[in-house]
Amino acid sequence: MNLLVTAFEPFGGQKINPSQQILESLPSTIAGANIHTVVVPTVFATAGPAVVQAAQRESADAVVCLGQAGGRPQVCPERVAINVADAPIADNAGDTPSDRPIVADGPAAYFSTLPIKAMVAAMREAGVPAEVSNTAGTFVCNHLMYWVLHHLDVPAGFIHVPYCLEQVVDVAQPAMSVADMTRGISAALEALVQGRQAPAQGAGALH
Amino acid sequence: MNLLVTAFEPFGGQKINPSQQILESLPSTIAGANIHTVVVPTVFATAGPAVVQAAQRESADAVVCLGQAGGRPQVCPERVAINVADAPIADNAGDTPSDRPIVADGPAAYFSTLPIKAMVAAMREAGVPAEVSNTAGTFVCNHLMYWVLHHLDVPAGFIHVPYCLEQVVDVAQPAMSVADMTRGISAALEALVQGRQAPAQGAGALH
Amino acid sequence: MNLLVTAFEPFGGQKINPSQQILESLPSTIAGANIHTVVVPTVFATAGPAVVQAAQRESADAVVCLGQAGGRPQVCPERVAINVADAPIADNAGDTPSDRPIVADGPAAYFSTLPIKAMVAAMREAGVPAEVSNTAGTFVCNHLMYWVLHHLDVPAGFIHVPYCLEQVVDVAQPAMSVADMTRGISAALEALVQGRQAPAQGAGALH
Amino acid sequence: MNLLVTAFEPFGGQKINPSQQILESLPSTIAGANIHTVVVPTVFATAGPAVVQAAQRESADAVVCLGQAGGRPQVCPERVAINVADAPIADNAGDTPSDRPIVADGPAAYFSTLPIKAMVAAMREAGVPAEVSNTAGTFVCNHLMYWVLHHLDVPAGFIHVPYCLEQVVDVAQPAMSVADMTRGISAALEALVQGRQAPAQGAGALH
Repeated sequence: MNLLVTAFEPFGGQKINPSQQILESLPSTIAGANIHTVVVPTVFATAGPAVVQAAQRESADAVVCLGQAGGRPQVCPERVAINVADAPIADNAGDTPSDRPIVADGPAAYFSTLPIKAMVAAMREAGVPAEVSNTAGTFVCNHLMYWVLHHLDVPAGFIHVPYCLEQVVDVAQPAMSVADMTRGISAALEALVQGRQAPAQGAGALH
Repeated sequence: MNLLVTAFEPFGGQKINPSQQILESLPSTIAGANIHTVVVPTVFATAGPAVVQAAQRESADAVVCLGQAGGRPQVCPERVAINVADAPIADNAGDTPSDRPIVADGPAAYFSTLPIKAMVAAMREAGVPAEVSNTAGTFVCNHLMYWVLHHLDVPAGFIHVPYCLEQVVDVAQPAMSVADMTRGISAALEALVQGRQAPAQGAGALH
Repeated sequence: MNLLVTAFEPFGGQKINPSQQILESLPSTIAGANIHTVVVPTVFATAGPAVVQAAQRESADAVVCLGQAGGRPQVCPERVAINVADAPIADNAGDTPSDRPIVADGPAAYFSTLPIKAMVAAMREAGVPAEVSNTAGTFVCNHLMYWVLHHLDVPAGFIHVPYCLEQVVDVAQPAMSVADMTRGISAALEALVQGRQAPAQGAGALH
Repeated sequence: MNLLVTAFEPFGGQKINPSQQILESLPSTIAGANIHTVVVPTVFATAGPAVVQAAQRESADAVVCLGQAGGRPQVCPERVAINVADAPIADNAGDTPSDRPIVADGPAAYFSTLPIKAMVAAMREAGVPAEVSNTAGTFVCNHLMYWVLHHLDVPAGFIHVPYCLEQVVDVAQPAMSVADMTRGISAALEALVQGRQAPAQGAGALH
């Protein structure tokens, strides 16, 4: 089994992107699956095609995209990607779309085809705070997730990670070390490879 | 023009629901449109049908559903409703669905057909903190929004409001007075009735 | 009875200071006491002397200083002022002290001599979220509170208030309307004038 | 040099206390100083005497007390302890004091006699988010800090730490791994032992 895991370059004035550091820390195999990695630009126009191309090149059986969600305290598999690009800041190519569809005439949304609740359960068992998120935002992360789910037929989805400690040594923001996040992501990937099931129980959000 | 505005009964151990109090404070007409109101139970099975029935009874030209988002500091028109019921707590009828589709074979999501950015701009002009939200959660609020957008052909959507002051006099949570929220909702409804446009500018979320 | 209530000018890039707007909204008498007001600069060197001078001019029987605590969701009577000026930003005169004593050889701290728990109880009864705070920070607010308690013999203390709505219409921060805060402050002042007692019950903070 | 580092037993319904886990992870010497440790009950009446006794037994040249500040995202050396016990919950012996002085006729407060800013700088250099805190609350942590500063003549103070990851795997709260916090505390202790100075710069809080 070939697993493609992707990360983003730094954006929004940050010098590092924890998703990239996690990627560099992942082992080459997890539960017998080969881990392939690619770091893509935080750019609306090119992130999606770069991941689709890498998935085809590596004959990926599943694709897990990682990205930074600064300010969140938990590692969050995303439930859904929506068909809109709406940018509060410019992407790394200077693009600032406003309510622009990602795919003209595409469906309003795609649900993740990853086992998001099994991934959350596995991360918690590994001692890493995790929760399903119901919004990936409307910036490049959501864009990439929508693009990949629209263009690929294999299981795919997105996981948002907190800031890493180095980014907030003098800022009052939740964060997690790259080592802890890597342990969490590894556990999530193992749950994916092993086809683990999560118990059927409500785990949603009131709002 | 007939405008239907809806609210929910209290839930989750709360004795009041600010959406209901706002409803009772709204004037009978706004910018010449008749304001019709209905309070529905916080129950997955019945909230949607109750609003659809009220919309037909009142010949509603647009439907704006209100609900409580305890902990948020802003009034938030929701951008999208997703086709899943996933309950962190029981609804008022004891229902606790887990990853249950709202409409079998329905689309993954519906975008609000209200002018959400014009509504946000109007609320801010009225001095009321407001922002577009990209998730309505997976509880009864999201359920109602999805149901209404699936079953009605008129402009429709959902606005989440903060706790009101009375709910948090001894709790460290953001809140707003019913009077301020009513002023905000009135401004949003006026923007809807008058067909106001928002300037095209990014107003999305990074994650 | 003469009550002096003070407020600060805007600081830190803000165009308004809610404490000043509350001051302008207070009635001229509360429970039979005359309300005297003064707005002082947000300047370490001059705020304290200006309030002490006003207290003497008005023959104040008690002094209640108000100030902005942006980001807090509750109106907070302060429990204690500490003998240090340590500025994260420049005051309005450009002063940025670092660990500078307010009064050389002064005691480490003064406790508020206002009935802070009775004030909190009164504000909550008036429907306004309130809580005792155990730190007034180390900027000009704490400085003024320490100065006043060091130099005056009448009951004195400080109440921090949240941002007002106008300051955060497009920012995700807790806030309260000037009208609600004025209602809370009026209730707190009434409790002071009437010598109300709070029930003896723990109301502190874990940390 | 003999350094006494203390921690608390779990309280408030928690099964673990990260301060205790950090204590167990500290090396036996840091920068040539012997590290002595003691875990004390989270009890107003006994925590202070237990630490004073341990300090005398170990001939401690400095005392650093650790405690949990659940919800904070940073490791926080405390600036000041105030002479009041005011309990929002019962301590582990069932004591719930309300505005009770810690030492009758004691001063209102004691400033930490640890190099708190040098400790913060050292932790940040070690990659661990840290900040000076201006309140240790009014529960057992503040009580212990006040007691120790009142009864001992050696440098002493308190450092609050966040939840550890295990405590919040399914809760949306900031946290840090025991390993990261141990690295931070070790760096802070090293700064203490080596008598490091912090650059004179404002690092206070607005409120």
